[in-house]
Amino acid sequence: MDFKNMGSTRVCVVTDKNVAKLDAMRQVVEALTREGVDFTVYDGTMVEPKDSSIKDAIQFSKAYGPDAFLAVGGGSVIDTAKLMNLYTKFPNADFLDFVNAPLGKGLPITKALYPLVAVPTTAGTGSETTGTAIFDMVAMKAKTGISHRGLKPTLGICDPLNTRTMPSAVHASSGLDVLCHSLESWTAIPYQSRTPRPENPISRPAYQGANPISDIFSLQALRSTAKYLPRAAKDPDDHEAQSEMLLAATLAGVGFGNAGVHLCHGMSYPISGQNPGYKHAGYVTDKPIIPHGVSVAVTAPAVFKFTAASNPERHLRAAEAFGVDISSVKRESAGDVLAEALSKFLVELGDQPRGLKALGFGGGDIDTLVEGTLPQKRVLNLAPGLSEEVNEEREQLRGLYEDAMAY
Amino acid sequence: MDFKNMGSTRVCVVTDKNVAKLDAMRQVVEALTREGVDFTVYDGTMVEPKDSSIKDAIQFSKAYGPDAFLAVGGGSVIDTAKLMNLYTKFPNADFLDFVNAPLGKGLPITKALYPLVAVPTTAGTGSETTGTAIFDMVAMKAKTGISHRGLKPTLGICDPLNTRTMPSAVHASSGLDVLCHSLESWTAIPYQSRTPRPENPISRPAYQGANPISDIFSLQALRSTAKYLPRAAKDPDDHEAQSEMLLAATLAGVGFGNAGVHLCHGMSYPISGQNPGYKHAGYVTDKPIIPHGVSVAVTAPAVFKFTAASNPERHLRAAEAFGVDISSVKRESAGDVLAEALSKFLVELGDQPRGLKALGFGGGDIDTLVEGTLPQKRVLNLAPGLSEEVNEEREQLRGLYEDAMAY
Repeated sequence: MDFKNMGSTRVCVVTDKNVAKLDAMRQVVEALTREGVDFTVYDGTMVEPKDSSIKDAIQFSKAYGPDAFLAVGGGSVIDTAKLMNLYTKFPNADFLDFVNAPLGKGLPITKALYPLVAVPTTAGTGSETTGTAIFDMVAMKAKTGISHRGLKPTLGICDPLNTRTMPSAVHASSGLDVLCHSLESWTAIPYQSRTPRPENPISRPAYQGANPISDIFSLQALRSTAKYLPRAAKDPDDHEAQSEMLLAATLAGVGFGNAGVHLCHGMSYPISGQNPGYKHAGYVTDKPIIPHGVSVAVTAPAVFKFTAASNPERHLRAAEAFGVDISSVKRESAGDVLAEALSKFLVELGDQPRGLKALGFGGGDIDTLVEGTLPQKRVLNLAPGLSEEVNEEREQLRGLYEDAMAY
Repeated sequence: MDFKNMGSTRVCVVTDKNVAKLDAMRQVVEALTREGVDFTVYDGTMVEPKDSSIKDAIQFSKAYGPDAFLAVGGGSVIDTAKLMNLYTKFPNADFLDFVNAPLGKGLPITKALYPLVAVPTTAGTGSETTGTAIFDMVAMKAKTGISHRGLKPTLGICDPLNTRTMPSAVHASSGLDVLCHSLESWTAIPYQSRTPRPENPISRPAYQGANPISDIFSLQALRSTAKYLPRAAKDPDDHEAQSEMLLAATLAGVGFGNAGVHLCHGMSYPISGQNPGYKHAGYVTDKPIIPHGVSVAVTAPAVFKFTAASNPERHLRAAEAFGVDISSVKRESAGDVLAEALSKFLVELGDQPRGLKALGFGGGDIDTLVEGTLPQKRVLNLAPGLSEEVNEEREQLRGLYEDAMAY
């Protein structure tokens, strides 16, 4: 009915082969049929999409010629739908035109895209609220993406009935993504410190730095995650906790979608891209997989120990969200206290690798991990305490990876 | 520059005669001139606008034929600009077509309006965030408005430098509007309870009832207002408090703009419309005036004493924002405790009428005040504890006005 109101007559429904079997998709098909809206279904989305799978999806959508998109799935599906929308609206653009610099040209999106309605079936990415889409550039062995507020979905329909179908391991790992979204955006450099300031507002990055509005979303999402994620991951029938986690994911999405993420996310891209063969428990796949949430959380204790010096108060307030009594903690101990709280939280959540070693990484991998992190400028620029001088930055990242080997 | 990015070439700048002299307007004129954007300035906006002044403004804008609007001023200016935008986009519509039912037809807005950029110069209405515009229908002796999310400004530029020009009395009364926006939206009926549920999402009212997202905004705005309004009103050089109040106004705007307001606002319309001759201290005008913020706050102690039974926990958390230790307060006392906290806050703020008597109203006015309140269905529908049966509702409103005579 929303599509009819928007004047849409030809909808490209984007999903993946697992979600295609779920009740959420059955309802979508029923509703579109009932309203007499023409539609087609693309179910070829890949989990953790690659540039090749994105290009296949774009080709499909260009051939269909839709005037609206509907994404039903997790972050991979919603991100893919964003890019199908973008390149269907700009059919003559080169793929690299909009990809984040330095890998692509990072051009701004100058026209309004087609309406995109996003129906999340996981409680993690918050992609229904953001202008970001992430994928692997296989030839460059790098995770990158496209970030511009023009990519944001028109409408997100967040119904906790649609996340009940998540397996417990997906609850846990998608919830860890929420944890890091909220912690990273809450501790990102303040919006006034971001440089260089663009000449024209249209060139503002999607990620602005922590600001008074994103703070409200990030802190609330952090508190909810600390409280409800353990329950949501452990008990498949705890629908209150699951509903709260879907809300937290959306709140965190708004928070990080304008403040940004930093080190956990920047380091996660080479971690998942250079996976030495780890296969996370509870994921039904025949290939090695480090779920995105796992790859961001595994460095969290090391990261926040490092960033705490930049703003001890914020790190202490984060520790407080995990139930730590901070009344007598010294500012200098903020990093240790938060790292300790995070380690305890991850261990108690269960089934989490206790550091990079548990994923199969060793000291010999640090150099390539660091080199895979350095190009993630878009997020590293928001990391508090990280040097702007590249050699010093390299040393700092090396220290972070070493510290993240085990917690 | 934002207008150029939006492709706008002909901008109608909306302001009033006071704001036209301020630095904010000087900067606007400079920027538009520098960017080479054609523009004209309409400075005929009335404070607390009437349908006649709105119609004059619409006529001006239709004749100019702009493709974008820029509002520089307080709520009256921004609301007027919203309506100029609406009726310039729908030039053949009858004025009553979009006016809220039952006074108008309350039709939904089915097309995207022209871009509207709002630059608030007061910290009160939050109008830069909402889809609501309020005015007097003089012939009907009623305040009403138009509410639809399609009216929302495209962009709000909230710069605390622009609110430094407010006189102290305007700081106080616009801040009281923020106080009531946040308290009313925090205590409005929950979104699941709102009936009837519309058949089509486009017919959803702008005011949805309290929901988990609006709650975050409303509660944060309430806490900020309790903390910073007294400082902002008392010390013209307390720029931190003034900045925090502008942020609180915007947050409260997002909160009430989707949750809604209820009794303080519903009762304020007849109070200001039937003003027996009160002229608020610090307002430079030769006519009687009850500033909007004063007219909403004057009933607040009576209102929240009445609504507390519907949700004592929320009323206690509100009292906590004013520094009340609620650890040993019983649920049954929530209303008295919050009313007491509000009275104390208003008295300490200074220069506030201690009830309707101080405005010149007496017991003989209650009938006409009640009759002027009953048509405010749009907001009364969100009032917790108010009867749906009109005779009982009338008695409840009578009781509220009696209680609001003095605090």
